[in-house]
Amino acid sequence: MTDITDKEAQHLHRLILFSDAVFAIAITLLAIEIHPPEHFTSVSAFFAEMRDKLWAYAFSFGVIGINWISHRRLFLRITRADTALDVLNFLLLGLVALLPLGTEMLWESGNGPAIFIYVGLVTLLGVTLAMTWGYAAFIGRMVEPMSQFEKVYVLLRVALLPGVMCGLTFFSLITGTPWGFVGMGLVLAALSIVSRLVIKGKPVVTEFSKD
Amino acid sequence: MTDITDKEAQHLHRLILFSDAVFAIAITLLAIEIHPPEHFTSVSAFFAEMRDKLWAYAFSFGVIGINWISHRRLFLRITRADTALDVLNFLLLGLVALLPLGTEMLWESGNGPAIFIYVGLVTLLGVTLAMTWGYAAFIGRMVEPMSQFEKVYVLLRVALLPGVMCGLTFFSLITGTPWGFVGMGLVLAALSIVSRLVIKGKPVVTEFSKD
Amino acid sequence: MTDITDKEAQHLHRLILFSDAVFAIAITLLAIEIHPPEHFTSVSAFFAEMRDKLWAYAFSFGVIGINWISHRRLFLRITRADTALDVLNFLLLGLVALLPLGTEMLWESGNGPAIFIYVGLVTLLGVTLAMTWGYAAFIGRMVEPMSQFEKVYVLLRVALLPGVMCGLTFFSLITGTPWGFVGMGLVLAALSIVSRLVIKGKPVVTEFSKD
Amino acid sequence: MTDITDKEAQHLHRLILFSDAVFAIAITLLAIEIHPPEHFTSVSAFFAEMRDKLWAYAFSFGVIGINWISHRRLFLRITRADTALDVLNFLLLGLVALLPLGTEMLWESGNGPAIFIYVGLVTLLGVTLAMTWGYAAFIGRMVEPMSQFEKVYVLLRVALLPGVMCGLTFFSLITGTPWGFVGMGLVLAALSIVSRLVIKGKPVVTEFSKD
Repeated sequence: MTDITDKEAQHLHRLILFSDAVFAIAITLLAIEIHPPEHFTSVSAFFAEMRDKLWAYAFSFGVIGINWISHRRLFLRITRADTALDVLNFLLLGLVALLPLGTEMLWESGNGPAIFIYVGLVTLLGVTLAMTWGYAAFIGRMVEPMSQFEKVYVLLRVALLPGVMCGLTFFSLITGTPWGFVGMGLVLAALSIVSRLVIKGKPVVTEFSKD
Repeated sequence: MTDITDKEAQHLHRLILFSDAVFAIAITLLAIEIHPPEHFTSVSAFFAEMRDKLWAYAFSFGVIGINWISHRRLFLRITRADTALDVLNFLLLGLVALLPLGTEMLWESGNGPAIFIYVGLVTLLGVTLAMTWGYAAFIGRMVEPMSQFEKVYVLLRVALLPGVMCGLTFFSLITGTPWGFVGMGLVLAALSIVSRLVIKGKPVVTEFSKD
Repeated sequence: MTDITDKEAQHLHRLILFSDAVFAIAITLLAIEIHPPEHFTSVSAFFAEMRDKLWAYAFSFGVIGINWISHRRLFLRITRADTALDVLNFLLLGLVALLPLGTEMLWESGNGPAIFIYVGLVTLLGVTLAMTWGYAAFIGRMVEPMSQFEKVYVLLRVALLPGVMCGLTFFSLITGTPWGFVGMGLVLAALSIVSRLVIKGKPVVTEFSKD
Repeated sequence: MTDITDKEAQHLHRLILFSDAVFAIAITLLAIEIHPPEHFTSVSAFFAEMRDKLWAYAFSFGVIGINWISHRRLFLRITRADTALDVLNFLLLGLVALLPLGTEMLWESGNGPAIFIYVGLVTLLGVTLAMTWGYAAFIGRMVEPMSQFEKVYVLLRVALLPGVMCGLTFFSLITGTPWGFVGMGLVLAALSIVSRLVIKGKPVVTEFSKD
């Protein structure tokens, strides 16, 4: 039995390393299609010309960062891997690897359809992350011991929340209004209250809220 | 003796990490030559123009994904490494690193010769993977204890099957007929039956069929 | 308690691996926008045309190298990680990933504003590195046991010194005078004296000066 | 003391991982500037147009592969790391990261000066690898216990031989004569004889010849 466990641990380890590499490459390639302006005579001229590109870069960097943190948090609770998890994780990585393309589209066109497609990609990323956790927690039974309630809590808090937050930030940035950020504050406050209620009786979640 | 084993374990570990990095970079670079259309006025116009590129991307992503899963499965059974294994593995990685180029060719030309070259590359990939396993299992004796029968089974199931499946999928996509997918179903069903027959007496293969 | 520690160790491990990958990709992409001259008839003609590009490459390679060494030294003293450390580290990586773009700007324009922006980027990198250490050492209390004095020493020596050295090197290269290098010598000599004074009574710092 | 050793092991581990990542990225980027011909009507037309590019790719892939194997073999004998080793290793990686550029130059120009510069880069790579081993073995005393004789043997066999072999292969390819390959055979035969003589009395080298 120990031999099987060793192999499963090695499998999970390779899957995590591979995912980290893809996240790292995608995040570093975000800037690769950004080129400096050919002629600029002052620092402010540089930033005036580069503003859209740098915003798109920063935003996509945030999207990948948040998804990496969520991925890390979910896989911290996953104890083994199988081929179905590989495939779901590959779907996720396939979407992550499209973000440099999405970012280029965002700064080049920046029109309505471009924004729609970009938000769609980020949403799909969130859905795939949630599916990965859903499979591991509810079907594959490959997570550490936790109650059904906690599995759902992790689904909402770790897998779905980042997508919601990306969407709300995006909403604020595009409409130029603070309502997206207000929405984010409300969602975070609500989750914080639920989290405290949950913690009272369940030390496992306390541990979770720390990572 | 433990010292030698330690070094061999470190060798194998570095080889696997290096391979993972090359797979991860190749898979992320698949999309790097894909650029968004300069002008598009609607979401459907975007996808109409990008369709061929996104299909080629998805297909090559699948090819690398399947080969990574096979690579992981084979190396899970390999217990040490030598320089000959390094070289065979480098041949494999050298072909993997050509897939971004092959994918670009596929969407740009998409004609008969392009498809022929692409399928040839994928086939060569499968052959190299099979050679790597063949060397490790039959010549280098660097795999975990298993019967000759199981070594051949792994060769067929893990090293050669992905290539066959890629070919059949490709056949279906290009001819626009379902026969490739039908063929895949038959091959999988046949292997499943063999697998069950094998499992009856051999618990080691049971363990294998799980990973 | 051991379970929590294990997870925190895994968290830190993934964070370090992820950072290494981003550093490695950024450093390798530095040369990706450098293309050979289309026509050249002699080796000296090649280097005459490539001189600015190769200098910019070498300099940025040094910047990333120094920052990687500092990052390694700081994280050697960090014993666990939390999400705030993730975010600070992501800020750092987001700046590292901009260095290929900064390098391209440096060799293409090479005028005053370009140099100013580049030095600003390197400075920001140093500030973010110092903030990361500051958070880990003074707020998050996630470093190995050391006195407040030593924490400040590490802040100056490991986190801030590289930025100062980059700036002084840059100063020398641009003005074509040796004063930047003289300044570096003086700073290093001063730190060496302080280091010796500190070592007398504190074996922990001795260990540090070795790594 | 164990704590120091742990840190040194972690330092060495991060250095090796970082090097692997740079090697892997450089090897995968070799093909990134190779684009398929825009129009081709047959498979043979494709290969006729791509021949120079694919040869340059294969050759550089071999160069990086051989250097990675040498790097792995040398670092298998290195037991700890310091900042000077970091710097030497960075010099090596800085040259490795220039190989995609060198490869592009090779296939684009392919004239005398281009070949001279390329061979110079490969030679410099070999010299830096030898310097890294020289520092670790003779100055930093950071290798596993071995006699002076063995240190020199490793210098010749692992660090310098790959450069010699690259040079001879190159000589054969360019002159279109087999003398380079003949030379390689002679060098390998000579080393094999020396190796056998050495093995007789020294089991440590036996172990070495296996890895």
